Amino acid sequence: MSNSKEWILFRVNLSNKEVLKESILGEDVEMYLGGRVLGAKMLYKELPAAIDPLSPENKLFISAGPLTGTTTPSTGRYVIQTKSPQTGLYLSTLSGGHFGPALRRAGCDMLIVEGVSEAPVYLLMGKDDIEIREASHLWGMTTGDTQALIKEELKDAETGIACIGPAGERKVPFAAVINERRAAGRGGAGAVMGSKNLKALAVKGGQTLEPVHPKAFQDAIRHMYRDINSHAVIAESFRLYGSHSAFSALTAGGIIPWRNWQDGTSPNAEALFPENWRDQFVVKDIRCASPCNFNCGKLTLARKGPHAGVISDGPDYETVYSFGASCDITDFSAIIEADALCDAYGLDTISMGLSIAFAMECFERGIIGKDITDGMELRFGSSRLLRPLIHATAYREGFGQWLSMGTRKMSEQFGRGSAAFAMQVKGMEIGGYDPRGAKSVALIYACGPRGGCHKSNGSANAQSRMELQSGDTRYSTEGKALVTKKQGDRRMISDSATFCIFAHGAISDEATVAALNAFTGLDYSVEGLYQMGERGSNLERMFNVREGLTRKWDTLPDRLLRQNPANGPNIHQVVELETLIDDYYTLCGWDLETGIPRREKLEELGLGWL
Amino acid sequence: MSNSKEWILFRVNLSNKEVLKESILGEDVEMYLGGRVLGAKMLYKELPAAIDPLSPENKLFISAGPLTGTTTPSTGRYVIQTKSPQTGLYLSTLSGGHFGPALRRAGCDMLIVEGVSEAPVYLLMGKDDIEIREASHLWGMTTGDTQALIKEELKDAETGIACIGPAGERKVPFAAVINERRAAGRGGAGAVMGSKNLKALAVKGGQTLEPVHPKAFQDAIRHMYRDINSHAVIAESFRLYGSHSAFSALTAGGIIPWRNWQDGTSPNAEALFPENWRDQFVVKDIRCASPCNFNCGKLTLARKGPHAGVISDGPDYETVYSFGASCDITDFSAIIEADALCDAYGLDTISMGLSIAFAMECFERGIIGKDITDGMELRFGSSRLLRPLIHATAYREGFGQWLSMGTRKMSEQFGRGSAAFAMQVKGMEIGGYDPRGAKSVALIYACGPRGGCHKSNGSANAQSRMELQSGDTRYSTEGKALVTKKQGDRRMISDSATFCIFAHGAISDEATVAALNAFTGLDYSVEGLYQMGERGSNLERMFNVREGLTRKWDTLPDRLLRQNPANGPNIHQVVELETLIDDYYTLCGWDLETGIPRREKLEELGLGWL
Repeated sequence: MSNSKEWILFRVNLSNKEVLKESILGEDVEMYLGGRVLGAKMLYKELPAAIDPLSPENKLFISAGPLTGTTTPSTGRYVIQTKSPQTGLYLSTLSGGHFGPALRRAGCDMLIVEGVSEAPVYLLMGKDDIEIREASHLWGMTTGDTQALIKEELKDAETGIACIGPAGERKVPFAAVINERRAAGRGGAGAVMGSKNLKALAVKGGQTLEPVHPKAFQDAIRHMYRDINSHAVIAESFRLYGSHSAFSALTAGGIIPWRNWQDGTSPNAEALFPENWRDQFVVKDIRCASPCNFNCGKLTLARKGPHAGVISDGPDYETVYSFGASCDITDFSAIIEADALCDAYGLDTISMGLSIAFAMECFERGIIGKDITDGMELRFGSSRLLRPLIHATAYREGFGQWLSMGTRKMSEQFGRGSAAFAMQVKGMEIGGYDPRGAKSVALIYACGPRGGCHKSNGSANAQSRMELQSGDTRYSTEGKALVTKKQGDRRMISDSATFCIFAHGAISDEATVAALNAFTGLDYSVEGLYQMGERGSNLERMFNVREGLTRKWDTLPDRLLRQNPANGPNIHQVVELETLIDDYYTLCGWDLETGIPRREKLEELGLGWL
Repeated sequence: MSNSKEWILFRVNLSNKEVLKESILGEDVEMYLGGRVLGAKMLYKELPAAIDPLSPENKLFISAGPLTGTTTPSTGRYVIQTKSPQTGLYLSTLSGGHFGPALRRAGCDMLIVEGVSEAPVYLLMGKDDIEIREASHLWGMTTGDTQALIKEELKDAETGIACIGPAGERKVPFAAVINERRAAGRGGAGAVMGSKNLKALAVKGGQTLEPVHPKAFQDAIRHMYRDINSHAVIAESFRLYGSHSAFSALTAGGIIPWRNWQDGTSPNAEALFPENWRDQFVVKDIRCASPCNFNCGKLTLARKGPHAGVISDGPDYETVYSFGASCDITDFSAIIEADALCDAYGLDTISMGLSIAFAMECFERGIIGKDITDGMELRFGSSRLLRPLIHATAYREGFGQWLSMGTRKMSEQFGRGSAAFAMQVKGMEIGGYDPRGAKSVALIYACGPRGGCHKSNGSANAQSRMELQSGDTRYSTEGKALVTKKQGDRRMISDSATFCIFAHGAISDEATVAALNAFTGLDYSVEGLYQMGERGSNLERMFNVREGLTRKWDTLPDRLLRQNPANGPNIHQVVELETLIDDYYTLCGWDLETGIPRREKLEELGLGWL
């Protein structure tokens, strides 16, 4: 375990049932830190180019970071890395909760799963031990039932469990991995687990983790709490509303797109404001297993009407965007149910909601008809349709066979100009921040390593809020590359340590370095840590380059490049993407024509071996 | 704890938050044994006549018996006793699983809940200690979520939890109490909990229970296992199919009523046969916390179609009868979902299924129309309607306001002769064994203490199977009173000890007495134990007499008295009820005119004090 300069890896081959324990020592520890950056390196090294993401050749790298499971605040996350069946490119996807800390406390920094099992199995990890267990009885179950059944079998409520639902079993390309009521949602890691007949990972983590330098570690933690408590957004808004906190302000700025990104606002937006939500639906504040003093998890409950009796953890901001604003649905109970169903079936809420919103626009424009929608009138605002549509997608039945393709493939099949409003980049549906009103967000979507994601390359949430506070400069392209590059590299640090990105947004670089050094005995400087982050960004980029990525892949849906929002404060805006990308590539040291990292940049980062 | 001649009672008053510990010693222990019979006595003594079952004056008596939680096989049950909001009469309702053993192992033989809490609460019982905990965040949740949340809060997967869902909160008169995926289903104990703002009972039971005479106790247990293993039905059929095991044989005998008891068979019956069910839906055999060697719990999973992803424990025979045969639905996935929804919302499956079947018949006969059914075409066989109908009932929304009344009240409101086919006795919908084909069952329904129940007074399942094996004598009224009286008194023993009635059907009286005496130090004879059972039967009868019961209440729906099944082997049969009742009252020592136990009988049983 990496409380000194050593990482412990467990490698499980599901084809031949072999379990190996390995360790990584020496320079690699300082070069790649752990978590996401280490995983990016492993992924690059171990996966041949051009493999089918759903073939036995693909692997899963499931990591905790050097601070996960320690007493450092808000470090409850784990990272899954694999080749994405949704984009065919690099994928890292993270989730908070209890699984990450349990993994680390079981003495495992990274679990690597290879091959494919003949029959359904789950892995049970205890201290220094992994058992491959029969899971035929769990195959077909929702993620909630799967977790409950495993806990019943183990007679242990504290087991950390990450699992897939029916969508992952059916290899829906945006199938999520679910732990508790949280998701490692994006990019289809659930489908990769499904392709391996791997239903779940269960971890009993009983060890305590000791820092190398206890006194310095305690000081760093105190510093972090001071940072968090003095950060208004985290200490106040997040405590009450979690990630949904910015909805009202983002509405005022026209950042939240409605009706599949046709509109920049809605007369009904207020129904989705976080204040109403907290009053009427939130029943309990919950948190990850790591220490946290703002508890962003919001357990919600629908109390009446057709969706009554459903609970979910959230819905978080992105889910309110995807099922609410994008589908023009303002019945919060319906959104809670959609969120809960996506968790139960193991589906990414953003891709699911956007796929439905895209289909709604296609239906309203007459591009598709009731002949393929199982007779459903697929109109914006149809809250009663969410349940059958999500169910059909998870099971790939009826119209769900279309929806489960996602927006890119649907638009290729539907044709008739629908690609212009398939709101995806590289096959991944984009997050809920309109770059026409906050230009730095365009780079996050266009150049992010895992496709149109709002947070794998910086933070669309933080950057939108920041841009809104700076008046009209939010419409300018100037300086946008710099902030995105810096936030992108910093994100690498967060996801490697692993920090909750909300908390880490408040924590200073100095406290970050102090905690990492004190816990691990390493000797990072702030600059060195950022360079480690940049190393990760380039590793991920190179993975995608090897898969064929060039500059022309770094783009946005036509709607954002050529069309104005129909209403709201940004009605005169489009995204000037090429200018932004020129600046960004230049800063990154990537070739302006191809988008490929220059050899000098790679060598500067110690990545000459690529 | 009653491993000697003492019972420990905890009394919780939710109005003033007072918790008292009491004990019962001496003669009462031998007179009333524990569990159901003790509860019947307490209920009679502590509840004034004519109280409103949903008022603060009603109480809940929740008991384990002297063998519950011990190593005696199949003694995992607990009993809830109260005044029923469905019948306005005596109610006992039992469930297996982990709650009963946990209660006993927490050192509690009986928990008495009185009064009403202002805000929602749950009770947490540890060893010799009860805490009244805030439960506002759980109010509105399904029973599955409620149990999961409490286990998360307590960080203990082994806590025994019994709780209510939205139906109990809304005081639906057939709201169940649910523990795990099992129900203390009949008669509305869930509504009584709801009326008290009591969401759940959670018990951490850590103690081990020691017999007074260990050697004799071990001998008795060995004897019991020999009995069980040599009993073909239990050792073979139940092991594979649980309570659903007799479905094929009962179909052949025309015992299973279809389409709200209009038909005695169906050309589609085979779709519901247990062999198909086990092949396609059962994923795991499960059992109570007590030792059991046949594991009648069958975890089922719907794998495809609109109900896919739903699991339930069962459905047991009665649920297949109520949602399957009664509603003419042969899609097993839909029945699994109906079962799971009833568990989730806390509804009795028999009353729910029969209420829907009754409404379907009313709709098909034109007695009700789409104006009150929320536009639904309420026809037999409409499997897609089960979900919205059950949801509406639990939440008392739309047509659910009608369904939640149950068949008796609906028929009073609908009129037009519908009372003749409201398949209930004293307000409780009857079980799935047609007394026209097994006459002893008529007495079980007509004279049972809790209304038209199939098992509170004997066992309709066991008696139907027995009658089927005896040829045409099943149509005779002769000897039917005797078997019902004997089985009724024996049931008192099972429910007091507490035994699983399936296992106890195989266990001899000698082994029963031996185990009870060895564990408690009491000195029962077989006759003495049956007299204790008869004492219980008369106590319950007297409770109902005090509420106004007379002979004319001991009746059956007109359909059974005057109408033949439309098809099947029993097409010439009706029930000759008055002859049966004359015999039964005579055997019981009850007045032929009034149905009231005679003074001599009560004095013979030591119940002169009534």
